[in-house]
Amino acid sequence: MDTNSVSPLPPPEAPLAMMEVEKTPPGSPSANDMPPPPDENFWDKIMRYEEETENTWNCGSWFEYLLIVILSTILLIGVLVLTLFWVIYYRGGFAWTENPTLQFNLHPVLMIAGFITFSGFSILLYRLCRCLKHIYVKLAHMFFHACAIPCIVVGFLAVFDSHNLQEPPLPNFYSLHSWLGFVTMGLFALQFIVGFFSFLVLLCCENATYGCRAAMVPIHASFGLVNFMLAIATCVTGLTEKVISAQFPEAEKIVMNSLGMVLVAIGIVVSVAVRRSNAPATAKVYVTERL
Amino acid sequence: MDTNSVSPLPPPEAPLAMMEVEKTPPGSPSANDMPPPPDENFWDKIMRYEEETENTWNCGSWFEYLLIVILSTILLIGVLVLTLFWVIYYRGGFAWTENPTLQFNLHPVLMIAGFITFSGFSILLYRLCRCLKHIYVKLAHMFFHACAIPCIVVGFLAVFDSHNLQEPPLPNFYSLHSWLGFVTMGLFALQFIVGFFSFLVLLCCENATYGCRAAMVPIHASFGLVNFMLAIATCVTGLTEKVISAQFPEAEKIVMNSLGMVLVAIGIVVSVAVRRSNAPATAKVYVTERL
Repeated sequence: MDTNSVSPLPPPEAPLAMMEVEKTPPGSPSANDMPPPPDENFWDKIMRYEEETENTWNCGSWFEYLLIVILSTILLIGVLVLTLFWVIYYRGGFAWTENPTLQFNLHPVLMIAGFITFSGFSILLYRLCRCLKHIYVKLAHMFFHACAIPCIVVGFLAVFDSHNLQEPPLPNFYSLHSWLGFVTMGLFALQFIVGFFSFLVLLCCENATYGCRAAMVPIHASFGLVNFMLAIATCVTGLTEKVISAQFPEAEKIVMNSLGMVLVAIGIVVSVAVRRSNAPATAKVYVTERL
Repeated sequence: MDTNSVSPLPPPEAPLAMMEVEKTPPGSPSANDMPPPPDENFWDKIMRYEEETENTWNCGSWFEYLLIVILSTILLIGVLVLTLFWVIYYRGGFAWTENPTLQFNLHPVLMIAGFITFSGFSILLYRLCRCLKHIYVKLAHMFFHACAIPCIVVGFLAVFDSHNLQEPPLPNFYSLHSWLGFVTMGLFALQFIVGFFSFLVLLCCENATYGCRAAMVPIHASFGLVNFMLAIATCVTGLTEKVISAQFPEAEKIVMNSLGMVLVAIGIVVSVAVRRSNAPATAKVYVTERL
Protein backbone atom coordinates (compact mmCIF):
# COMPACT_ATOMS: atom_id res chain seq x y z
CA MET A 1 0.00 0.00 0.00
CA ASP A 2 1.33 3.43 -0.82
CA THR A 3 1.63 6.11 1.82
CA ASN A 4 -1.43 7.81 0.44
CA SER A 5 -3.74 4.87 1.07
CA VAL A 6 -6.65 4.94 3.50
CA SER A 7 -6.21 4.05 7.13
CA PRO A 8 -9.19 2.40 8.84
CA LEU A 9 -9.80 5.45 11.02
CA PRO A 10 -8.25 8.66 9.71
CA PRO A 11 -7.49 11.35 12.27
CA PRO A 12 -10.73 13.00 13.36
CA GLU A 13 -9.64 16.43 12.17
CA ALA A 14 -9.88 15.41 8.52
CA PRO A 15 -13.55 14.53 8.30
CA LEU A 16 -14.45 17.21 10.80
CA ALA A 17 -12.85 19.84 8.65
CA MET A 18 -14.85 18.60 5.69
CA MET A 19 -18.09 18.44 7.57
CA GLU A 20 -17.65 21.97 8.77
CA VAL A 21 -16.85 23.16 5.27
CA GLU A 22 -20.18 21.68 4.31
CA LYS A 23 -21.98 23.66 6.92
CA THR A 24 -20.43 27.00 6.15
CA PRO A 25 -20.57 27.68 2.45
CA PRO A 26 -18.96 31.02 1.69
CA GLY A 27 -21.54 33.77 1.53
CA SER A 28 -24.29 31.82 3.24
CA PRO A 29 -26.21 33.36 6.12
CA SER A 30 -24.88 31.92 9.31
CA ALA A 31 -26.15 34.98 11.19
CA ASN A 32 -29.24 33.18 12.43
CA ASP A 33 -27.35 30.45 14.15
CA MET A 34 -23.89 31.56 15.08
CA PRO A 35 -22.74 35.01 14.01
CA PRO A 36 -19.13 34.85 12.82
CA PRO A 37 -16.71 37.46 14.12
CA PRO A 38 -16.37 40.36 11.65
CA ASP A 39 -13.57 40.20 9.08
CA GLU A 40 -13.24 36.44 9.43
CA ASN A 41 -12.66 34.80 6.08
CA PHE A 42 -13.73 31.38 4.84
CA TRP A 43 -10.57 29.46 5.73
CA ASP A 44 -10.31 31.08 9.17
CA LYS A 45 -13.87 29.91 9.79
CA ILE A 46 -13.02 26.36 8.85
CA MET A 47 -10.03 26.38 11.15
CA ARG A 48 -12.10 27.79 14.00
CA TYR A 49 -14.82 25.19 13.57
CA GLU A 50 -12.28 22.45 13.29
CA GLU A 51 -10.82 23.39 16.66
CA GLU A 52 -14.23 23.85 18.26
CA THR A 53 -15.72 20.59 17.14
CA GLU A 54 -12.64 18.44 17.64
CA ASN A 55 -13.97 17.08 20.90
CA THR A 56 -17.65 17.09 19.99
CA TRP A 57 -17.93 14.54 17.21
CA ASN A 58 -15.71 11.68 18.23
CA CYS A 59 -17.70 9.69 20.74
CA GLY A 60 -19.64 6.75 19.50
CA SER A 61 -18.28 6.78 15.99
CA TRP A 62 -16.56 3.37 16.01
CA PHE A 63 -19.60 2.03 17.83
CA GLU A 64 -21.94 3.39 15.14
CA TYR A 65 -19.73 2.05 12.38
CA LEU A 66 -19.67 -1.45 13.86
CA LEU A 67 -23.41 -1.26 14.57
CA ILE A 68 -24.15 -0.46 10.92
CA VAL A 69 -21.85 -3.20 9.61
CA ILE A 70 -23.19 -5.87 11.99
CA LEU A 71 -26.85 -4.87 11.72
CA SER A 72 -26.80 -4.67 7.93
CA THR A 73 -24.99 -8.02 7.62
CA ILE A 74 -27.56 -9.68 9.90
CA LEU A 75 -30.46 -8.10 8.02
CA LEU A 76 -29.15 -8.77 4.49
CA ILE A 77 -28.40 -12.42 5.22
CA GLY A 78 -31.43 -12.75 7.49
CA VAL A 79 -33.87 -11.61 4.81
CA LEU A 80 -32.59 -14.29 2.43
CA VAL A 81 -32.75 -17.00 5.11
CA LEU A 82 -36.29 -15.91 6.06
CA THR A 83 -37.38 -16.02 2.39
CA LEU A 84 -35.88 -19.49 1.96
CA PHE A 85 -37.60 -20.62 5.16
CA TRP A 86 -40.97 -19.26 3.97
CA VAL A 87 -40.67 -20.79 0.51
CA ILE A 88 -39.34 -24.20 1.59
CA TYR A 89 -41.36 -24.67 4.79
CA TYR A 90 -44.70 -23.17 3.72
CA ARG A 91 -44.67 -23.14 -0.11
CA GLY A 92 -43.21 -26.59 -0.85
CA GLY A 93 -39.77 -25.70 -2.20
CA PHE A 94 -38.61 -25.36 -5.79
CA ALA A 95 -39.07 -26.84 -9.25
CA TRP A 96 -38.43 -25.76 -12.82
CA THR A 97 -40.92 -25.92 -15.72
CA GLU A 98 -42.58 -29.22 -14.64
CA ASN A 99 -44.53 -27.44 -11.88
CA PRO A 100 -45.37 -23.74 -12.46
CA THR A 101 -46.50 -23.20 -8.84
CA LEU A 102 -43.21 -24.46 -7.41
CA GLN A 103 -41.30 -22.70 -10.19
CA PHE A 104 -42.82 -19.44 -8.96
CA ASN A 105 -41.10 -20.00 -5.60
CA LEU A 106 -37.74 -19.29 -7.24
CA HIS A 107 -38.93 -15.76 -8.00
CA PRO A 108 -39.01 -14.25 -4.47
CA VAL A 109 -35.82 -16.05 -3.40
CA LEU A 110 -33.75 -15.06 -6.43
CA MET A 111 -35.07 -11.51 -6.62
CA ILE A 112 -34.35 -10.91 -2.94
CA ALA A 113 -30.90 -12.51 -3.35
CA GLY A 114 -30.10 -10.30 -6.37
CA PHE A 115 -31.79 -7.00 -5.63
CA ILE A 116 -31.49 -6.96 -1.85
CA THR A 117 -28.69 -9.17 -0.52
CA PHE A 118 -26.07 -8.80 -3.27
CA SER A 119 -26.95 -5.20 -4.14
CA GLY A 120 -27.17 -4.23 -0.48
CA PHE A 121 -23.74 -5.66 0.30
CA SER A 122 -22.37 -4.01 -2.82
CA ILE A 123 -23.67 -0.57 -1.81
CA LEU A 124 -22.54 -0.88 1.81
CA LEU A 125 -19.16 -2.30 0.86
CA TYR A 126 -18.50 0.65 -1.44
CA ARG A 127 -19.53 3.03 1.29
CA LEU A 128 -17.91 1.42 4.32
CA CYS A 129 -14.83 -0.37 3.02
CA ARG A 130 -11.93 1.86 3.80
CA CYS A 131 -8.96 -0.42 4.22
CA LEU A 132 -8.45 -1.28 0.57
CA LYS A 133 -7.22 0.64 -2.43
CA HIS A 134 -10.11 2.34 -4.17
CA ILE A 135 -9.82 0.31 -7.37
CA TYR A 136 -10.30 -2.95 -5.40
CA VAL A 137 -13.39 -1.51 -3.71
CA LYS A 138 -14.75 -0.56 -7.14
CA LEU A 139 -14.08 -4.04 -8.51
CA ALA A 140 -15.73 -5.66 -5.49
CA HIS A 141 -18.72 -3.30 -5.93
CA MET A 142 -19.00 -4.40 -9.55
CA PHE A 143 -18.48 -8.07 -8.65
CA PHE A 144 -21.37 -8.10 -6.16
CA HIS A 145 -23.65 -6.36 -8.64
CA ALA A 146 -22.52 -8.82 -11.33
CA CYS A 147 -23.49 -11.69 -8.98
CA ALA A 148 -26.96 -10.16 -8.78
CA ILE A 149 -27.48 -10.36 -12.57
CA PRO A 150 -27.96 -14.17 -12.93
CA CYS A 151 -30.26 -14.16 -9.88
CA ILE A 152 -32.41 -11.43 -11.42
CA VAL A 153 -32.51 -13.03 -14.88
CA VAL A 154 -33.46 -16.49 -13.57
CA GLY A 155 -35.89 -14.95 -11.06
CA PHE A 156 -37.57 -13.07 -13.89
CA LEU A 157 -37.77 -16.15 -16.12
CA ALA A 158 -39.22 -18.15 -13.21
CA VAL A 159 -42.18 -15.81 -12.73
CA PHE A 160 -42.68 -15.44 -16.49
CA ASP A 161 -42.78 -19.23 -16.94
CA SER A 162 -44.95 -19.76 -13.89
CA HIS A 163 -47.53 -17.37 -15.40
CA ASN A 164 -47.37 -18.73 -18.96
CA LEU A 165 -47.41 -22.42 -18.01
CA GLN A 166 -50.53 -22.15 -15.84
CA GLU A 167 -53.83 -23.47 -17.24
CA PRO A 168 -55.17 -20.95 -18.25
CA PRO A 169 -52.05 -18.75 -18.53
CA LEU A 170 -51.96 -15.78 -16.13
CA PRO A 171 -51.48 -12.32 -17.67
CA ASN A 172 -48.03 -10.71 -17.36
CA PHE A 173 -47.24 -7.07 -16.46
CA TYR A 174 -50.64 -6.52 -15.01
CA SER A 175 -50.10 -5.36 -11.43
CA LEU A 176 -48.34 -2.48 -9.70
CA HIS A 177 -45.74 -5.00 -8.49
CA SER A 178 -44.86 -6.01 -12.05
CA TRP A 179 -44.72 -2.41 -13.28
CA LEU A 180 -42.44 -1.47 -10.40
CA GLY A 181 -40.33 -4.55 -11.03
CA PHE A 182 -39.96 -3.63 -14.68
CA VAL A 183 -38.76 -0.11 -13.79
CA THR A 184 -36.39 -1.54 -11.14
CA MET A 185 -34.85 -4.03 -13.59
CA GLY A 186 -34.48 -1.36 -16.29
CA LEU A 187 -32.78 1.06 -13.92
CA PHE A 188 -30.53 -1.72 -12.60
CA ALA A 189 -29.37 -2.58 -16.12
CA LEU A 190 -28.80 1.09 -16.94
CA GLN A 191 -26.86 1.69 -13.72
CA PHE A 192 -24.71 -1.40 -14.28
CA ILE A 193 -23.83 -0.48 -17.87
CA VAL A 194 -23.23 3.20 -17.12
CA GLY A 195 -21.23 2.34 -13.98
CA PHE A 196 -19.12 -0.25 -15.78
CA PHE A 197 -18.21 2.09 -18.63
CA SER A 198 -17.88 5.29 -16.62
CA PHE A 199 -15.90 4.06 -13.67
CA LEU A 200 -13.92 1.12 -15.03
CA VAL A 201 -13.57 1.29 -18.82
CA LEU A 202 -13.01 5.07 -18.98
CA LEU A 203 -10.15 4.69 -16.50
CA CYS A 204 -8.05 3.69 -19.51
CA CYS A 205 -7.61 7.38 -20.22
CA GLU A 206 -7.91 8.78 -16.70
CA ASN A 207 -7.20 12.45 -17.09
CA ALA A 208 -9.15 12.97 -20.31
CA THR A 209 -12.31 11.48 -18.80
CA TYR A 210 -11.98 13.13 -15.38
CA GLY A 211 -14.72 15.72 -15.92
CA CYS A 212 -17.12 13.18 -17.34
CA ARG A 213 -16.51 10.67 -14.54
CA ALA A 214 -16.76 13.43 -11.91
CA ALA A 215 -20.15 14.45 -13.26
CA MET A 216 -21.37 10.84 -13.24
CA VAL A 217 -20.50 10.09 -9.59
CA PRO A 218 -23.39 11.84 -7.80
CA ILE A 219 -25.84 10.68 -10.49
CA HIS A 220 -24.72 7.05 -10.16
CA ALA A 221 -24.83 7.25 -6.34
CA SER A 222 -28.28 8.88 -6.24
CA PHE A 223 -29.86 6.53 -8.75
CA GLY A 224 -28.16 3.55 -7.11
CA LEU A 225 -29.92 4.31 -3.84
CA VAL A 226 -33.16 5.08 -5.71
CA ASN A 227 -32.87 1.69 -7.41
CA PHE A 228 -32.40 -0.05 -4.05
CA MET A 229 -35.46 1.71 -2.61
CA LEU A 230 -37.44 0.80 -5.76
CA ALA A 231 -36.41 -2.82 -5.28
CA ILE A 232 -37.68 -2.74 -1.69
CA ALA A 233 -40.97 -1.12 -2.76
CA THR A 234 -41.34 -3.82 -5.43
CA CYS A 235 -40.68 -6.58 -2.87
CA VAL A 236 -43.24 -5.27 -0.36
CA THR A 237 -45.92 -4.86 -3.07
CA GLY A 238 -45.17 -8.42 -4.26
CA LEU A 239 -45.48 -9.80 -0.72
CA THR A 240 -48.70 -7.85 -0.16
CA GLU A 241 -50.14 -9.18 -3.44
CA LYS A 242 -49.29 -12.72 -2.43
CA VAL A 243 -50.58 -12.47 1.14
CA ILE A 244 -53.92 -10.96 0.01
CA SER A 245 -54.40 -13.19 -3.06
CA ALA A 246 -54.94 -16.45 -1.16
CA GLN A 247 -56.01 -17.86 2.20
CA PHE A 248 -52.73 -18.57 3.91
CA PRO A 249 -52.46 -19.90 7.47
CA GLU A 250 -52.06 -17.18 10.14
CA ALA A 251 -48.48 -18.20 10.98
CA GLU A 252 -47.45 -17.95 7.32
CA LYS A 253 -49.02 -14.49 7.02
CA ILE A 254 -47.00 -13.36 10.01
CA VAL A 255 -43.81 -14.76 8.42
CA MET A 256 -44.60 -12.93 5.16
CA ASN A 257 -45.38 -9.64 6.92
CA SER A 258 -42.20 -9.99 8.98
CA LEU A 259 -40.29 -10.50 5.76
CA GLY A 260 -41.76 -7.20 4.54
CA MET A 261 -40.73 -5.45 7.76
CA VAL A 262 -37.17 -6.84 7.49
CA LEU A 263 -37.00 -5.51 3.91
CA VAL A 264 -38.10 -2.08 5.10
CA ALA A 265 -35.59 -2.22 7.97
CA ILE A 266 -32.87 -2.92 5.37
CA GLY A 267 -34.04 0.13 3.42
CA ILE A 268 -33.72 2.25 6.55
CA VAL A 269 -30.31 0.89 7.60
CA VAL A 270 -28.81 1.20 4.10
CA SER A 271 -30.11 4.71 3.45
CA VAL A 272 -29.01 5.91 6.89
CA ALA A 273 -25.59 4.24 6.48
CA VAL A 274 -25.12 5.96 3.14
CA ARG A 275 -26.36 9.36 4.27
CA ARG A 276 -25.22 9.67 7.90
CA SER A 277 -22.34 12.03 8.25
CA ASN A 278 -21.25 11.69 11.85
CA ALA A 279 -20.62 7.98 11.77
CA PRO A 280 -16.94 7.03 11.55
CA ALA A 281 -17.95 5.91 8.14
CA THR A 282 -17.85 9.62 7.49
CA ALA A 283 -14.17 9.37 7.70
CA LYS A 284 -14.84 8.25 4.15
CA VAL A 285 -18.21 9.88 3.62
CA TYR A 286 -16.87 11.06 0.32
CA VAL A 287 -15.86 7.66 -0.96
CA THR A 288 -19.14 7.61 -2.83
CA GLU A 289 -18.20 10.93 -4.37
CA ARG A 290 -14.86 9.67 -5.65
CA LEU A 291 -14.31 8.45 -9.15
CA MET B 1 -32.12 41.25 4.35
CA ASP B 2 -28.61 41.53 5.67
CA THR B 3 -25.64 41.52 3.37
CA ASN B 4 -24.90 37.97 4.41
CA SER B 5 -28.21 36.58 3.11
CA VAL B 6 -28.53 34.04 0.32
CA SER B 7 -28.82 35.08 -3.28
CA PRO B 8 -30.94 32.83 -5.51
CA LEU B 9 -27.90 31.69 -7.45
CA PRO B 10 -24.61 32.16 -5.66
CA PRO B 11 -21.50 32.38 -7.82
CA PRO B 12 -20.61 28.88 -9.06
CA GLU B 13 -17.22 28.96 -7.40
CA ALA B 14 -18.74 28.66 -3.95
CA PRO B 15 -20.53 25.31 -4.29
CA LEU B 16 -17.79 24.01 -6.55
CA ALA B 17 -15.22 24.69 -3.92
CA MET B 18 -17.33 22.80 -1.42
CA MET B 19 -17.97 19.89 -3.70
CA GLU B 20 -14.31 19.53 -4.41
CA VAL B 21 -13.51 19.67 -0.74
CA GLU B 22 -15.89 16.77 -0.40
CA LYS B 23 -14.04 14.82 -3.02
CA THR B 24 -10.56 15.37 -1.70
CA PRO B 25 -10.46 14.66 2.01
CA PRO B 26 -6.94 15.20 3.25
CA GLY B 27 -5.06 11.96 3.44
CA SER B 28 -7.41 10.05 1.18
CA PRO B 29 -6.01 8.08 -1.73
CA SER B 30 -6.55 10.12 -4.84
CA ALA B 31 -3.65 8.34 -6.48
CA ASN B 32 -5.88 5.96 -8.40
CA ASP B 33 -7.73 8.70 -10.16
CA MET B 34 -5.71 11.85 -10.33
CA PRO B 35 -2.34 11.92 -8.64
CA PRO B 36 -1.78 15.30 -6.96
CA PRO B 37 1.53 17.04 -7.52
CA PRO B 38 3.96 16.36 -4.67
CA ASP B 39 4.10 18.87 -1.80
CA GLU B 40 0.66 20.23 -2.57
CA ASN B 41 -1.29 20.93 0.57
CA PHE B 42 -5.04 20.66 1.19
CA TRP B 43 -5.98 24.28 0.44
CA ASP B 44 -3.82 24.42 -2.68
CA LYS B 45 -5.65 21.34 -3.89
CA ILE B 46 -9.02 22.98 -3.36
CA MET B 47 -7.94 26.05 -5.25
CA ARG B 48 -6.60 23.96 -8.10
CA TYR B 49 -9.78 21.90 -8.37
CA GLU B 50 -11.89 25.02 -8.13
CA GLU B 51 -10.12 26.52 -11.13
CA GLU B 52 -10.20 23.28 -13.09
CA THR B 53 -13.86 22.55 -12.62
CA GLU B 54 -15.12 26.11 -12.96
CA ASN B 55 -16.23 25.53 -16.52
CA THR B 56 -17.28 21.92 -16.14
CA TRP B 57 -20.19 22.08 -13.73
CA ASN B 58 -22.18 25.11 -14.76
CA CYS B 59 -24.22 24.02 -17.74
CA GLY B 60 -27.75 22.91 -17.12
CA SER B 61 -27.90 23.83 -13.47
CA TRP B 62 -30.74 26.38 -13.61
CA PHE B 63 -32.51 24.03 -16.01
CA GLU B 64 -32.18 21.13 -13.55
CA TYR B 65 -33.32 23.29 -10.65
CA LEU B 66 -36.44 24.43 -12.51
CA LEU B 67 -37.08 20.89 -13.74
CA ILE B 68 -37.03 19.54 -10.17
CA VAL B 69 -39.29 22.34 -8.86
CA ILE B 70 -41.82 22.04 -11.71
CA LEU B 71 -41.80 18.23 -11.84
CA SER B 72 -42.16 17.80 -8.11
CA THR B 73 -44.98 20.37 -7.90
CA ILE B 74 -46.85 18.61 -10.71
CA LEU B 75 -46.34 15.19 -9.12
CA LEU B 76 -47.17 16.23 -5.54
CA ILE B 77 -50.39 18.00 -6.55
CA GLY B 78 -51.13 15.44 -9.28
CA VAL B 79 -51.03 12.50 -6.86
CA LEU B 80 -53.64 14.17 -4.63
CA VAL B 81 -55.87 15.02 -7.60
CA LEU B 82 -55.57 11.46 -8.93
CA THR B 83 -56.47 10.03 -5.50
CA LEU B 84 -59.50 12.34 -5.24
CA PHE B 85 -60.54 11.35 -8.78
CA TRP B 86 -60.23 7.63 -7.96
CA VAL B 87 -62.14 7.92 -4.68
CA ILE B 88 -64.92 10.22 -5.93
CA TYR B 89 -65.40 8.78 -9.43
CA TYR B 90 -64.94 5.04 -8.71
CA ARG B 91 -65.47 4.63 -4.94
CA GLY B 92 -68.55 6.87 -4.37
CA GLY B 93 -67.02 9.76 -2.44
CA PHE B 94 -66.94 10.38 1.30
CA ALA B 95 -68.99 9.93 4.45
CA TRP B 96 -68.30 9.87 8.20
CA THR B 97 -69.49 7.19 10.65
CA GLU B 98 -72.91 6.62 8.95
CA ASN B 99 -71.26 4.56 6.17
CA PRO B 100 -68.03 2.72 7.03
CA THR B 101 -67.26 1.90 3.38
CA LEU B 102 -67.43 5.55 2.32
CA GLN B 103 -65.68 6.61 5.51
CA PHE B 104 -62.74 4.42 4.46
CA ASN B 105 -62.37 6.61 1.35
CA LEU B 106 -61.12 9.46 3.53
CA HIS B 107 -58.14 7.28 4.49
CA PRO B 108 -56.18 7.22 1.19
CA VAL B 109 -56.96 10.87 0.41
CA LEU B 110 -55.95 12.24 3.81
CA MET B 111 -52.90 10.02 4.21
CA ILE B 112 -51.61 10.98 0.76
CA ALA B 113 -52.34 14.66 1.49
CA GLY B 114 -50.47 14.51 4.81
CA PHE B 115 -47.62 12.09 4.23
CA ILE B 116 -46.95 12.79 0.56
CA THR B 117 -48.18 16.21 -0.60
CA PHE B 118 -47.61 18.32 2.54
CA SER B 119 -44.49 16.42 3.69
CA GLY B 120 -43.08 16.37 0.15
CA PHE B 121 -43.48 20.12 -0.27
CA SER B 122 -42.02 20.63 3.19
CA ILE B 123 -38.89 18.60 2.39
CA LEU B 124 -38.37 20.17 -1.04
CA LEU B 125 -39.03 23.68 0.23
CA TYR B 126 -36.39 23.26 2.92
CA ARG B 127 -33.97 21.95 0.36
CA LEU B 128 -34.65 24.27 -2.56
CA CYS B 129 -35.80 27.54 -1.03
CA ARG B 130 -32.82 29.83 -1.10
CA CYS B 131 -34.23 33.33 -1.36
CA LEU B 132 -35.47 33.66 2.22
CA LYS B 133 -33.77 33.97 5.56
CA HIS B 134 -33.11 30.56 7.04
CA ILE B 135 -35.46 31.01 10.00
CA TYR B 136 -38.40 31.64 7.61
CA VAL B 137 -37.54 28.49 5.68
CA LYS B 138 -37.47 26.55 8.95
CA LEU B 139 -40.84 27.95 9.99
CA ALA B 140 -42.35 27.13 6.59
CA HIS B 141 -40.89 23.60 6.85
CA MET B 142 -42.56 23.21 10.25
CA PHE B 143 -45.82 24.79 9.01
CA PHE B 144 -46.18 22.30 6.13
CA HIS B 145 -45.44 19.38 8.45
CA ALA B 146 -47.92 20.80 10.98
CA CYS B 147 -50.57 20.90 8.19
CA ALA B 148 -49.92 17.19 7.66
CA ILE B 149 -50.82 16.33 11.27
CA PRO B 150 -54.63 16.84 11.15
CA CYS B 151 -54.73 14.98 7.80
CA ILE B 152 -52.88 12.01 9.31
CA VAL B 153 -54.95 11.96 12.51
CA VAL B 154 -58.31 12.11 10.69
CA GLY B 155 -57.06 9.66 8.04
CA PHE B 156 -56.08 7.23 10.79
CA LEU B 157 -59.43 7.60 12.61
CA ALA B 158 -61.25 7.08 9.31
CA VAL B 159 -59.68 3.66 8.66
CA PHE B 160 -60.00 2.66 12.33
CA ASP B 161 -63.72 3.53 12.33
CA SER B 162 -64.32 1.92 8.94
CA HIS B 163 -62.89 -1.35 10.32
CA ASN B 164 -64.67 -1.23 13.70
CA LEU B 165 -68.08 -0.19 12.34
CA GLN B 166 -68.26 -3.01 9.78
CA GLU B 167 -70.54 -5.98 10.52
CA PRO B 168 -68.62 -8.06 11.61
CA PRO B 169 -65.77 -5.67 12.60
CA LEU B 170 -62.56 -6.10 10.60
CA PRO B 171 -59.35 -6.72 12.55
CA ASN B 172 -56.90 -3.80 12.94
CA PHE B 173 -53.09 -3.89 12.57
CA TYR B 174 -53.19 -7.14 10.72
CA SER B 175 -51.41 -6.54 7.41
CA LEU B 176 -47.97 -5.41 6.29
CA HIS B 177 -49.56 -2.12 5.20
CA SER B 178 -50.85 -1.41 8.71
CA TRP B 179 -47.54 -2.36 10.34
CA LEU B 180 -45.64 -0.11 7.96
CA GLY B 181 -48.18 2.66 8.55
CA PHE B 182 -47.73 2.34 12.30
CA VAL B 183 -43.94 2.68 11.99
CA THR B 184 -44.35 5.62 9.59
CA MET B 185 -46.71 7.48 11.93
CA GLY B 186 -44.47 6.83 14.93
CA LEU B 187 -41.37 8.07 13.14
CA PHE B 188 -43.28 11.11 11.84
CA ALA B 189 -44.34 12.05 15.39
CA LEU B 190 -40.81 11.55 16.70
CA GLN B 191 -39.28 13.60 13.89
CA PHE B 192 -41.78 16.42 14.41
CA ILE B 193 -41.23 16.61 18.17
CA VAL B 194 -37.44 16.31 17.94
CA GLY B 195 -37.31 18.80 15.05
CA PHE B 196 -39.52 21.30 16.83
CA PHE B 197 -37.50 21.23 20.03
CA SER B 198 -34.04 20.92 18.48
CA PHE B 199 -34.28 23.48 15.72
CA LEU B 200 -36.82 26.00 17.02
CA VAL B 201 -37.13 25.86 20.82
CA LEU B 202 -33.40 25.38 21.50
CA LEU B 203 -32.68 28.50 19.43
CA CYS B 204 -33.57 30.43 22.60
CA CYS B 205 -30.02 29.78 23.80
CA GLU B 206 -28.22 29.54 20.47
CA ASN B 207 -24.61 29.18 21.39
CA ALA B 208 -25.08 26.81 24.31
CA THR B 209 -27.07 24.36 22.18
CA TYR B 210 -24.89 24.62 19.06
CA GLY B 211 -23.16 21.25 19.48
CA CYS B 212 -26.40 19.47 20.22
CA ARG B 213 -28.23 21.03 17.26
CA ALA B 214 -25.27 20.37 14.97
CA ALA B 215 -25.33 16.70 15.92
CA MET B 216 -29.08 16.51 15.28
CA VAL B 217 -29.04 17.94 11.74
CA PRO B 218 -27.82 14.92 9.76
CA ILE B 219 -29.93 12.57 11.88
CA HIS B 220 -33.08 14.64 11.31
CA ALA B 221 -32.36 14.92 7.57
CA SER B 222 -31.64 11.20 7.15
CA PHE B 223 -34.65 10.03 9.12
CA GLY B 224 -36.84 12.62 7.42
CA LEU B 225 -36.06 11.11 4.03
CA VAL B 226 -36.40 7.59 5.47
CA ASN B 227 -39.83 8.57 6.80
CA PHE B 228 -40.89 9.85 3.38
CA MET B 229 -39.75 6.61 1.70
CA LEU B 230 -41.56 4.60 4.40
CA ALA B 231 -44.71 6.61 3.67
CA ILE B 232 -44.42 5.78 -0.03
CA ALA B 233 -43.84 2.07 0.71
CA THR B 234 -46.91 2.14 2.98
CA CYS B 235 -49.01 3.78 0.24
CA VAL B 236 -48.03 1.28 -2.44
CA THR B 237 -48.69 -1.71 -0.15
CA GLY B 238 -52.09 -0.18 0.73
CA LEU B 239 -52.96 0.28 -2.94
CA THR B 240 -51.81 -3.26 -3.74
CA GLU B 241 -53.91 -4.67 -0.89
CA LYS B 242 -56.95 -2.79 -2.15
CA VAL B 243 -56.50 -3.70 -5.82
CA ILE B 244 -56.05 -7.42 -5.03
CA SER B 245 -58.75 -7.64 -2.36
CA ALA B 246 -61.75 -7.09 -4.66
CA GLN B 247 -62.86 -7.38 -8.27
CA PHE B 248 -62.49 -3.85 -9.56
CA PRO B 249 -63.16 -2.83 -13.18
CA GLU B 250 -60.07 -2.86 -15.42
CA ALA B 251 -60.04 0.94 -15.81
CA GLU B 252 -60.08 1.44 -12.05
CA LYS B 253 -57.20 -1.01 -11.60
CA ILE B 254 -55.17 0.97 -14.11
CA VAL B 255 -55.96 4.22 -12.23
CA MET B 256 -54.88 2.60 -8.94
CA ASN B 257 -51.66 1.19 -10.41
CA SER B 258 -50.91 4.55 -12.01
CA LEU B 259 -51.40 6.16 -8.62
CA GLY B 260 -48.78 3.74 -7.26
CA MET B 261 -46.39 4.63 -10.08
CA VAL B 262 -46.87 8.38 -9.44
CA LEU B 263 -46.08 7.79 -5.75
CA VAL B 264 -42.89 5.96 -6.70
CA ALA B 265 -41.98 8.73 -9.16
CA ILE B 266 -42.37 11.22 -6.28
CA GLY B 267 -40.02 9.09 -4.18
CA ILE B 268 -37.44 9.18 -6.98
CA VAL B 269 -37.74 12.93 -7.65
CA VAL B 270 -37.60 13.88 -3.97
CA SER B 271 -34.66 11.63 -3.12
CA VAL B 272 -32.72 12.76 -6.19
CA ALA B 273 -33.54 16.43 -5.49
CA VAL B 274 -32.28 16.06 -1.94
CA ARG B 275 -29.16 14.08 -2.84
CA ARG B 276 -28.02 15.51 -6.20
CA SER B 277 -25.01 17.67 -5.84
CA ASN B 278 -24.53 19.21 -9.24
CA ALA B 279 -27.95 20.76 -9.49
CA PRO B 280 -28.03 24.51 -8.82
CA ALA B 281 -29.84 23.42 -5.75
CA THR B 282 -26.33 22.50 -4.64
CA ALA B 283 -25.67 26.14 -4.35
CA LYS B 284 -27.41 25.41 -1.06
CA VAL B 285 -26.75 21.71 -0.84
CA TYR B 286 -25.77 22.35 2.73
CA VAL B 287 -28.99 24.05 3.74
CA THR B 288 -30.07 20.69 5.07
CA GLU B 289 -26.89 20.58 7.09
CA ARG B 290 -27.53 23.95 8.75
CA LEU B 291 -29.14 24.35 12.12
